[in-house]
Amino acid sequence: MSGTLYGLGVGPGDPELITLKALRLLRSSTVVAYPAPEHGDSLARAIVAGHLPGGQTEVAIRMPMLVERFPAQEVYDRAAAELGDHLAAGRDVAVLCEGDPFFYGSFMYLFGRMAERFPVQVVPGVSSLTACAAALGAPLAARNDVLTVVPAPLPADQLRERLAQTDAAAIMKLGRHFAKVRDVLEELGLDSRSRYVERATMANQRLLPLDQVDADSVPYFSMVLVHRRGEAWA
Amino acid sequence: MSGTLYGLGVGPGDPELITLKALRLLRSSTVVAYPAPEHGDSLARAIVAGHLPGGQTEVAIRMPMLVERFPAQEVYDRAAAELGDHLAAGRDVAVLCEGDPFFYGSFMYLFGRMAERFPVQVVPGVSSLTACAAALGAPLAARNDVLTVVPAPLPADQLRERLAQTDAAAIMKLGRHFAKVRDVLEELGLDSRSRYVERATMANQRLLPLDQVDADSVPYFSMVLVHRRGEAWA
Repeated sequence: MSGTLYGLGVGPGDPELITLKALRLLRSSTVVAYPAPEHGDSLARAIVAGHLPGGQTEVAIRMPMLVERFPAQEVYDRAAAELGDHLAAGRDVAVLCEGDPFFYGSFMYLFGRMAERFPVQVVPGVSSLTACAAALGAPLAARNDVLTVVPAPLPADQLRERLAQTDAAAIMKLGRHFAKVRDVLEELGLDSRSRYVERATMANQRLLPLDQVDADSVPYFSMVLVHRRGEAWA
Repeated sequence: MSGTLYGLGVGPGDPELITLKALRLLRSSTVVAYPAPEHGDSLARAIVAGHLPGGQTEVAIRMPMLVERFPAQEVYDRAAAELGDHLAAGRDVAVLCEGDPFFYGSFMYLFGRMAERFPVQVVPGVSSLTACAAALGAPLAARNDVLTVVPAPLPADQLRERLAQTDAAAIMKLGRHFAKVRDVLEELGLDSRSRYVERATMANQRLLPLDQVDADSVPYFSMVLVHRRGEAWA
């Protein structure tokens, strides 16, 4: 009897934003795996640190710093093999996923490698999308609004085209792409309808007007929300 | 000292998909309010029924059946007045929201009426978007994918335009609009890359290939997920 691979959404950062279901499966799994940087601590593990019962086998899936080159196939191949050994031996494996496993998450690369060989269950989590909206006090979309999720690394002309056409947008993965995004929003006259948040729901969360953001120090975990009408309910 | 208005995301249907934070605030609030149909039971209340401690004041916000006419301003005006009386008397009020309060949720109409007068805190929840992806075993979007959330009531030409341009899409609020959506997906050659789910994470959840869906019996709580590459990680 093989174990089950659980992809657990642990939410956007506040440890209290984990679901009862993810918490139960986290605590009952023999093995806990999580993405981590090449050196240093895993954010996903830090989110659940206070919930861990102790005594579990931990597997850090360490990702080398490879700018603009992802996914790192070999890292996922190796992790799938290691976790597969645990599953084949009958041990349940919980993979921790920041936010939600299937919303721009790296879990899908393990899922793609393992779902045909092992039982897999994905537990959805609170995504950064809705966490940022809650932090900003800014409803995302209402009624028949079209909502577009746009990764900031896209070229400026693609960003312009997407943002010009939608009722509401969430611009993710800002980091060093912030200045380009802000320029596009200004060109489109949407800057006054845009709101910026970084590290939503974490202890060091910050909300800022767009023109007060220092473009040189924007973290990856940041987002701009835009609504064409200013307010979704308007 | 006025009470606090909490907008609590209670998740997509499975009672175990509520967060620890929403559960804590649900249990500690003196008043619990929720949307409900004109006659009959509230889905949001049903999701948390097993978590209620008893002894709370309950307020059902009953919405008359008004097809194609929303929001019903008078209903929210009245609800805001009633809940405002509780808040002014110092009582905390928890408003239950299916999924997430700010993702196409009716909570924003209360938020718009009350946020300037009372302390409001929004607790994000697991949205139908990620719940449907988990149920389908279908990652929503990866890397620099553009993900578009499209309400099915839009006219066919607008649906066609949106779906032709995006990497991934979630088509919501299907109900009686399903046949139109399926036709558009077939025209665009995207039908084989589309997956249908209704009542994700609820006891009566169903997953179906697009061509096996009976267009005459599609519920409002259903979604089609599309990915241009077939699989988000491909």
